[in-house]
Order: sequence, then C-alpha cells, then structure tokens
Amino acid sequence: MTEPSTERTRVQRAREKARYDREIVDEIFDEALICHVGFVADGSAFVIPTIHARVGDTLYFHGSPASRMLHVMKKGADVTVTATLLDGIVAARSVFHHSMHYRSAMVFGTARFVDSPEERMIALKAITNAALPGRWSEARPPSRSEDKGTLVVAVPIEEYSAKISENDVGDEPEDYDLPIWAGVIPLTLTPGVPEPDRHNLDGVGIPPSVRRFVGEVAE
Amino acid sequence: MTEPSTERTRVQRAREKARYDREIVDEIFDEALICHVGFVADGSAFVIPTIHARVGDTLYFHGSPASRMLHVMKKGADVTVTATLLDGIVAARSVFHHSMHYRSAMVFGTARFVDSPEERMIALKAITNAALPGRWSEARPPSRSEDKGTLVVAVPIEEYSAKISENDVGDEPEDYDLPIWAGVIPLTLTPGVPEPDRHNLDGVGIPPSVRRFVGEVAE
Repeated sequence: MTEPSTERTRVQRAREKARYDREIVDEIFDEALICHVGFVADGSAFVIPTIHARVGDTLYFHGSPASRMLHVMKKGADVTVTATLLDGIVAARSVFHHSMHYRSAMVFGTARFVDSPEERMIALKAITNAALPGRWSEARPPSRSEDKGTLVVAVPIEEYSAKISENDVGDEPEDYDLPIWAGVIPLTLTPGVPEPDRHNLDGVGIPPSVRRFVGEVAE
Repeated sequence: MTEPSTERTRVQRAREKARYDREIVDEIFDEALICHVGFVADGSAFVIPTIHARVGDTLYFHGSPASRMLHVMKKGADVTVTATLLDGIVAARSVFHHSMHYRSAMVFGTARFVDSPEERMIALKAITNAALPGRWSEARPPSRSEDKGTLVVAVPIEEYSAKISENDVGDEPEDYDLPIWAGVIPLTLTPGVPEPDRHNLDGVGIPPSVRRFVGEVAE
C-alpha cells in the first residue's frame, strides 16, 4: 500500500519517509521490545511504555488490573500505539542537517478487553515469547490465580502508518568543501552477559531462549 | 519529593516503583536520545517519537513547520512527554513474573512557541549537543534561512513523575525449587563503528564529540 488508510495516518512531514505497508508496520512492532501507548483519561493525554506482542492482525497488552492504561483500554478506549527503533545518529557538516536513523510505526485503534480463555492464553504466550522466543515453554505456566490477576487487552492493526529514516547524510552542496567530519553512528539495543538469579539451582544453565537472544543480537 | 505534584502524575500501578524526584526525571530525559510526545489533534491522540533536549526546567523540541506535532505544540497545546530507557529483560521461573528493567519519566505541560532568537539558539544548541555533546561547535551553525525554517517549542518541567523498575527476579517462594533458569539480561543502546560519509574530505578524522560518544558508551 502506498497510500494511508485514513487521513490521520497520513505522514505530514517528510512524506518520502512514510510507509503504509502492513509488513513494515508488523516488522517494526515485532522487533521492538516495548512500545508507547497513548490514551486520554480524565481529560489528559497519557503516554505509557509497555511491552506488547503481535499475533496476526492484533496487538496484545497485559498487566495488572491496577494499571491506569489497562483500566482505560478495558473499557474500549481509542488508543494510539507507537513503536520506535532507534538505528543511528546522523552527524552532518551543518547543524541543520543533523538527524536520526529510526523506524517507527503507529497504530490507531479501539482497545478491546480479552475475556476468552483461549485468546488470553494465546496473548500471554505471545507476550512472553515476544522478547525471548521459546521462553513460554521453559517457564512455569500461569496458575489460576495468576491468570485471574492479569488483564489482557487487544488493539486491531487496521489503521496504521510507519516512518523510516535511513538516508545518508544530506548536507547542502556548498558544505561538502568544509573540513568537517560527517557520518552515521549506528545504534543497536545490545544484550549484555545474562546475570543469573542468585537462587538458581546448581546445574541449571542458561536456557535456549536466552542463549538465542544474546547470541542473535550480540554476535 | 516523595509525593506527586498532581493527581494525574500519581503512579497507579506498582507504586513502589514511583519516583517523584525532579533529579530522577532530569536524568532520564538527559540520558534518553529520543522521547515520545503525546497530543490530541482533530480528536485523535497521537504519539510521536522525537529528539529533545533539557535546559534547566525546560524541554525543547525542534523541527520543520510542516510537522503536525510542532504545529499543534506551537499553538500552545497540552502535551505529554515520555522518555523511556530499557535496561533489561527479567526472565523469571514463572511466566507471570517475567518483566523488564526500565526507567521512564513523564512530563505533562502546555507547549510554548519559542520566538526569542536568544532562546531559540540556546534550544538548538542543546538539541544538537544532546546526543553528541560538543557537536554544536564542530558543525556549521544555522544560516538565516535554516534558522527560519526550524520551529522550536518548549515544555516546562513542572508536572512530572518517573517510574523505575530495577528489582531482582521476584518469583514465588515455592518456585525456587524448580530447575528453571532465572535471571536478568541487561540491555544497552550501543553505538557501532562510525560510518564516515563518502564525501568527507581527505584527512578529516572522527571528531571529539563522536569519539566521546562511541567511547563512553561502548567501553
């Protein structure tokens, strides 16, 4: 898709960076470990960081029933969900052309309370596996009381846009003669050495989900 | 400060993670390379990633006059600004106790158009130096037309809260006997090797601002 689905998803500034392809939106949400949810409560806009998972056409969120965000979402609020990946700093010869490399995706949607036990389990599994694929089957599943103590909400991916900034340094032609270094400093969210909990039983090593995560990203 | 300044900044969920100290809010905004701005336009909430800089009690933002966000902020909109630093993944023995280490700060405020040339220059310098301290004095300053083509807005840091999640794995007592690995995987936004622009003049090396950034964070 090369056109936005609705007017509010039309990127206003730097339209050459706009992407209206669903696959790109999915990729950004799948790679991002957290997103930010915007909603209005008592007349104020809130912007809350949270973990998420995508399953097909749906973004899932979970947490405590005491969460303001989930309380609002449970009631079917309109929300905006933005995921952003910061890929680099662009240092130009001119102050004016400094910028960032990033990929961001925004979804507008009406939140929905997930009460079906089957869908709840799909959502919780996807959220647990979002950062560490395979972790769900390594860890102890939720007990009945833990399951009851977890609120799950969904937002459909129907109205969306993405923006990708990945260009080379874009200085003014006359600035190329200046003896000023320009370039891009790549940025990646990098895992460090896993820190085992001090209560781990003897002989229990780092599991495959964590090994894959550390290896895939750090290597 | 151990109490929120207003009711909307009171953390609802996991209140032991709440911080209402101004220094903590400042530290989070100073370390974060980007933040997310939430605002309402035409009845919809938007959540937009952007770079920022803090100078004293003020957050500054800049960009093109064509930006929807800046257009709304210029008119004095109420906005919410959230900065989030993702510090780690907490893998617990139980699915239920999986979580993230993070630090986030949220500021509610009324945006203000910055038209004073002196304040504009302070803001642009701070924004340029936010990611790469010292970069302002290495690069070519804004020309008159570049200056005119840049919109600068400010948000006062008056109403704010922060949330810090940094605890060890918090499993249920009975789960400590399970042969399941638990631990924390630290995460850091890490700079890679700077990629020089292909038009850089011969003999122009990596400048101090970039060296410091790469060294400070990667070492």
